[in-house]
Amino acid sequence: MPDSPALADSLHTGSQVRQACRTGEWTGPTCGLAAGYAQANLAILPQSDAYEFLEFCRRNPKPCPLLDVTSPGSPVPESVAPGSDLRTDLPSYRVWRDGERTSEPTDILDFWQDDFVAFVIGCSFTFESALLRAEIPVRHLELGSNVPMYRTNVETRGAGRYHGPLVVSMRPLSPADAIRAVQITSRYPGVHGAPVHLGLPEEIGINDLSQPDFGDAVPIHEGELPVFWACGVTPQAVIMASRPKLAITHSPGCMFVTDIRDETLSTG
Amino acid sequence: MPDSPALADSLHTGSQVRQACRTGEWTGPTCGLAAGYAQANLAILPQSDAYEFLEFCRRNPKPCPLLDVTSPGSPVPESVAPGSDLRTDLPSYRVWRDGERTSEPTDILDFWQDDFVAFVIGCSFTFESALLRAEIPVRHLELGSNVPMYRTNVETRGAGRYHGPLVVSMRPLSPADAIRAVQITSRYPGVHGAPVHLGLPEEIGINDLSQPDFGDAVPIHEGELPVFWACGVTPQAVIMASRPKLAITHSPGCMFVTDIRDETLSTG
Repeated sequence: MPDSPALADSLHTGSQVRQACRTGEWTGPTCGLAAGYAQANLAILPQSDAYEFLEFCRRNPKPCPLLDVTSPGSPVPESVAPGSDLRTDLPSYRVWRDGERTSEPTDILDFWQDDFVAFVIGCSFTFESALLRAEIPVRHLELGSNVPMYRTNVETRGAGRYHGPLVVSMRPLSPADAIRAVQITSRYPGVHGAPVHLGLPEEIGINDLSQPDFGDAVPIHEGELPVFWACGVTPQAVIMASRPKLAITHSPGCMFVTDIRDETLSTG
Repeated sequence: MPDSPALADSLHTGSQVRQACRTGEWTGPTCGLAAGYAQANLAILPQSDAYEFLEFCRRNPKPCPLLDVTSPGSPVPESVAPGSDLRTDLPSYRVWRDGERTSEPTDILDFWQDDFVAFVIGCSFTFESALLRAEIPVRHLELGSNVPMYRTNVETRGAGRYHGPLVVSMRPLSPADAIRAVQITSRYPGVHGAPVHLGLPEEIGINDLSQPDFGDAVPIHEGELPVFWACGVTPQAVIMASRPKLAITHSPGCMFVTDIRDETLSTG
C-alpha cells in the first residue's frame, strides 16, 4: 500500500525517502518524512533556457534560493545528494509544455533529455522544523495538510524570458509568534529566509485566504495574523507566465529529500 | 530662549546636552539631540525599595533593560556617563509620592536623598537611529512629535511590591518594513529589542490608537500595521500601580543622554 503511515515511519533519511520514491512505494507529499533532512523544490529546463533561469534565481533569492544546480545532462545534484537521481527520486512531477501542465508522472525517465539542467531550490520545510523546535505551532502541520500558497500581485524581478508573480506560503500566527518567526526564519536565507509580508493580505493581492492557488486552506483563528513567506512554487507560476517550450517541476508538496541536514542551512 | 532649534543644533554630544539641561537652557524633549549617543529612561528609588525594583527589571528585560544602576547615594551612572549628575542633567523630572505625580521639576537637587539608587534604562531612540539608517521611516520623527505610548492589558512579571501593566510604544510600518524592523531591533536587546506585538492592538488591550496614554498620537496610513515595542515608560505605570512612598523618574520624552554610542548596544 503506497504512502502508508507505517511506511512513512520507516523513512528516516533522505536516502530512504528517495529509495521509496524510486521504487514507486511513495508517491505522495513528503512533509514530515525524514525529519531533519532538508527538502527541496525542483525545476528542470533544457540548457538553452537554463542561463536565463539561473539569472532569474539570482535576482529572486527569496522565492528561489538555489541549493544546487546540476551539470547539463546529469540528474545528480552532487552537493546535496550525491547518490540520488532526480529523474526517479521524487514522489511526483509536473511536466509543462508552453506553460501548460501536460502530465503528472511519478518518474521522468521517459522525458529526460541530455541537455537538461536541474535547479534544486530550498524549501520552507527546513524552517518549519526550526519553528516547531521553538514551540511555534504550524497550523497546516497540525492539520496534516499541505501549506496554503497564493499567487500575489508582486512581480518577481524578470530575467530574459522569465517573469511572473511571486507565490507565497502562509502560516497563521499570533503576533508574538509572528515576531519570533521573523527572528528564526531570518537565520535561514537558503530556504526563503524571513517572511515577505504579514497581516494585510490584500496589500499583495490576496483577497480570499480560504482560496489558496496551491495547497490547502487552513483556518485563521481570532488573534492571529497571516504571515507570508516567499515560496518555492514561484518557479511554477513563472513557468505558467513565461511559457518555456518544456519544463519539469516537482508536484507541490512532493519534494526532493536531500542528504543535507536542515541545520547546515542556518546562518547562526 | 530655551529649547530653540539653534540650541538643539549645537548639542552634538551627550555631555553637551547634559550641560544644557544642567544650566536650564534645555528643558524639553531630547529626541533628535546628540545623534548617535544613547539616551536613557530614569527611575530613582530609595535603597530600601531598590532591591525589589532591581529584581523587577531583571524579570522584565524588554521594558526595563538596565544600562546602569548607581551606587546608593551617588547621582553618577559611572559606566554610561562618568562625569554626569542625574540630579540636574535631564530636562525634566517627575516626582511620585504614593503613586501620584506630585511635581515635574527641571532638577531634583532639593529632592535628593543619600539613600537614592538610580536605574538607567535603555531607550528606543537607539534603535530608531538604526531604523532610519535602514531607510525605514519613523512616523513620529517625521512629524516632530513624541512617540505614542499605550498601557496594555499585559501584566509585567511582578517582583515584591512592584507590579503593573506593560507600556508599549507604537510605530506604524508597512508589513515589509515591519519585518525588517523586527530583524533590526532584534540586534538591540539593551534598548527593548524586537517588538512585542504587531497588527492586532485589541489583543493587548489597546482599543483606540488615537488616544495614547503617553506621548502624541500619529496617523496610521492604509497598508500599514501598528508595531509595538516594550517601552521604558513602563516603570512609571508600575510606580502608579505599586505606589511606593517616593520615586522619581524622567518626564516622558525628556531623557538622560549618555556618553555611550548607540552602536555599542548592538549585538552584531
